[in-house]
Amino acid sequence: MLPHQAKGKPVATPQTNSDRALLVDLYELTMAAAYFEHRVDCRATFELFVRSMPQERAYLVAAGLDAALGYLENLHFTEGDVNYLQGLPAFKTVSPAFFEHLRQFRFTGDVSAVAEGTPVFADEPILQVTAPILEAQVVETYLLSVVNFETLIASKAARVVRAARGRGVLEFGTRRAHGPEAGVRAARAAYVGGCAATSNVLAGYRYGIPLAGTAAHSWTQVFSSERRSFEALLETFPESAILLIDTYEPLQGAETAATLGRKVPGVRLDSGDLLEKSRAVREILNRHGLKETKIVASGDLNEFKIEELLTHGAPIDLFGVGTDLATSRDVPTLSVVYKLVEIEHDGRIEYKTKFSEQKVYSPGRKQVFRFSRGGKYHHDVIACCGEDPPEAEALLQPVMRGGRRLEPTAPIQGIRARTLAHLDRWPEAYHALRDAPTYPVAKSAQLDRLLKEVRERYVEAPQALSAQRDSRGDAS
Amino acid sequence: MLPHQAKGKPVATPQTNSDRALLVDLYELTMAAAYFEHRVDCRATFELFVRSMPQERAYLVAAGLDAALGYLENLHFTEGDVNYLQGLPAFKTVSPAFFEHLRQFRFTGDVSAVAEGTPVFADEPILQVTAPILEAQVVETYLLSVVNFETLIASKAARVVRAARGRGVLEFGTRRAHGPEAGVRAARAAYVGGCAATSNVLAGYRYGIPLAGTAAHSWTQVFSSERRSFEALLETFPESAILLIDTYEPLQGAETAATLGRKVPGVRLDSGDLLEKSRAVREILNRHGLKETKIVASGDLNEFKIEELLTHGAPIDLFGVGTDLATSRDVPTLSVVYKLVEIEHDGRIEYKTKFSEQKVYSPGRKQVFRFSRGGKYHHDVIACCGEDPPEAEALLQPVMRGGRRLEPTAPIQGIRARTLAHLDRWPEAYHALRDAPTYPVAKSAQLDRLLKEVRERYVEAPQALSAQRDSRGDAS
Repeated sequence: MLPHQAKGKPVATPQTNSDRALLVDLYELTMAAAYFEHRVDCRATFELFVRSMPQERAYLVAAGLDAALGYLENLHFTEGDVNYLQGLPAFKTVSPAFFEHLRQFRFTGDVSAVAEGTPVFADEPILQVTAPILEAQVVETYLLSVVNFETLIASKAARVVRAARGRGVLEFGTRRAHGPEAGVRAARAAYVGGCAATSNVLAGYRYGIPLAGTAAHSWTQVFSSERRSFEALLETFPESAILLIDTYEPLQGAETAATLGRKVPGVRLDSGDLLEKSRAVREILNRHGLKETKIVASGDLNEFKIEELLTHGAPIDLFGVGTDLATSRDVPTLSVVYKLVEIEHDGRIEYKTKFSEQKVYSPGRKQVFRFSRGGKYHHDVIACCGEDPPEAEALLQPVMRGGRRLEPTAPIQGIRARTLAHLDRWPEAYHALRDAPTYPVAKSAQLDRLLKEVRERYVEAPQALSAQRDSRGDAS
Repeated sequence: MLPHQAKGKPVATPQTNSDRALLVDLYELTMAAAYFEHRVDCRATFELFVRSMPQERAYLVAAGLDAALGYLENLHFTEGDVNYLQGLPAFKTVSPAFFEHLRQFRFTGDVSAVAEGTPVFADEPILQVTAPILEAQVVETYLLSVVNFETLIASKAARVVRAARGRGVLEFGTRRAHGPEAGVRAARAAYVGGCAATSNVLAGYRYGIPLAGTAAHSWTQVFSSERRSFEALLETFPESAILLIDTYEPLQGAETAATLGRKVPGVRLDSGDLLEKSRAVREILNRHGLKETKIVASGDLNEFKIEELLTHGAPIDLFGVGTDLATSRDVPTLSVVYKLVEIEHDGRIEYKTKFSEQKVYSPGRKQVFRFSRGGKYHHDVIACCGEDPPEAEALLQPVMRGGRRLEPTAPIQGIRARTLAHLDRWPEAYHALRDAPTYPVAKSAQLDRLLKEVRERYVEAPQALSAQRDSRGDAS
């Protein structure tokens, strides 16, 4: 099928998987219990960011925000969840009041975030969560996981889409994704990153993403002849069928497709030398007057192979990309972290960081400012939250207050358009697939001073921090 | 928390996600529509196998079967699913009878499979599905995706677990997995592969996997002193708390933990030189009489780092492994395929394969025979289904008939035990983490003959296959 989609809005109802409250790491719940038992109820701010850029990526495309907010808004423990936890041996020393608390638990915090489809870099907060410490802690794993994965795939997709130079990229990767649900999320993220369509029908249903598909080799194999299999598919789908022509021999398959005496919307090549084969197939199709027939190529494609094919002028109209896209095969994970940057207790702010080896990060709530020159992005500055340089765009914006989204889910077509618009404002050098220059990201003088102050306080009084006996039950 | 689990059986109800029928690639539904419209109703057998072994893996551990069977048994289209499909522009040429058919659709086929926890190799069928062609085609993507991912992770886990030489491996990877649901599946697959526990609470709830966890740096940071944070955690969890000692300086943290005057179940190191630090921490703990306190190490660990640490005698009791395990970072996907091997029409069998470049596979239903010598596995033979060599174990066994499972879900503890027993029967050489020898997998003479016959039929009459005009509507 050529890319197409249902008319009107996505028809899916929001996901309300009641299991999701348990989709946490155990330590979040044991810490929650211990916070509860010790009446630690300060308000905390955590920031979610990527610790370092993978060498193979010049930029990342933020994604996963919609899933993150949907999770926060619907989060609650079912009776079954609570009973399960109460039955765990680890929790036998925890008072019943904690489990009552879980029964009432809702996320009531505030969230600021970078809009989906925005390029981001190491150390730049993508999400900023401010909530009572217990709530902010419980949501750690889920937030990390959705932002990690969707950002990973949107970033990979943006590279593949740029390499395709305006030809459509079709996301075909669910079968090789990390489970079927990862396939659905990958399809969404790939579309955010600029793909034209997906083969994953559930992604079309849930998010309104255009769908595309062709036929499998088994279709051709079941019929007594390749010709008959082509005819049968075209009889059912005269306007959109894409014939897979390489089950036996691709050029013979192209000849067969071209001599059916019918309109053929598209053909797909899935093996062999795609440059040579696509040229020969185009020649065969044109010779028989099928100049409008699209050629779709697939078979372990990625941005490098697509760039190579197009550099040599391969007459390919659409690229089907599966495994490499849905798993981000060359970079299968990002170093996302969720770090406590400050707590507020009785109106007083305490700035937080960590000093263990190579894991220091800047304390305090931040903002990311993006500066442009002549319509192109020029550099970023990570600053303290209150700073406000003129002429820069502030990337972090409030998206949730008191546990409620400030805006409904944005239409995904708009997010995709934003990604493409952002990437067009990026100087071309950063789009090189290999050895792109490093985009300049600085830290503001005020942010550096804050780290220095926190460090000095720590260096001056490390014993106080590590050994001071504090008999108060609460945090301060 | 040290590894522990709820008493009794897993309390989770089976997943009945009604969205799953749409979790397909579009082409499966368009082919289904075209099969329906052309009354193609032969019975087809598809086999799911890995096309080639990743260079970094000497064996794979089959997993995902339980999810696959649960999917097949519950598969159905909701009214909303069908309405969505009927509204897609691509389906506007399809008759209403097809959508009625989808409303009644159930999977009614037979499945044979390799038991979860069994080592498998390239070309060996893991699942064999025999069903009416329309049904067998529709389930392709979901089956590929669950078997691909769970086999991938179980295989990685087996390597990590062997490297840990009997010390427990704790799966900590959800935050870096490909979305939260991938984290749940990864936790299950990691346990199948031999891990001792997971931090993913939902995996504990759904599958009865033991849970484990420690504390985050934020726990320590919130308190006015590290000492106070340690005391608070131990007050709530005196029997199971694992203190994270590297928020400020790990040896100082160990000293603080060791001088609380309390029993300390465990401490965790998450940064720095884990060999040097674990030795120093062990020395500090022992000096204060805490010889029973476990040392947990974490921080971007994998099988190679664990082997290195243990080769040098690091006194580490438990390894927390996250990203590398939950994403199988070095091999983030397997080349799984789902191929038509035969169709039966009016009682006559037609064997199927493909001849496009480098994509030939053996036709016909197969069986995999595993031969042993002296209690150790020696070699495998992939054979035709009817063959039955004496003294070999047949790996593919019937697991579903007429769409119903033949056995209920096996307890996961038993599957894990089977994995470990299988791996003990593997000659030690194959357990080398690098450059392991290739385990011998042969094809039987009968299977080779069958491929030759199908090829000859094709080579003798390629035109017949690609160009023969067949006016019958059905497949033959």
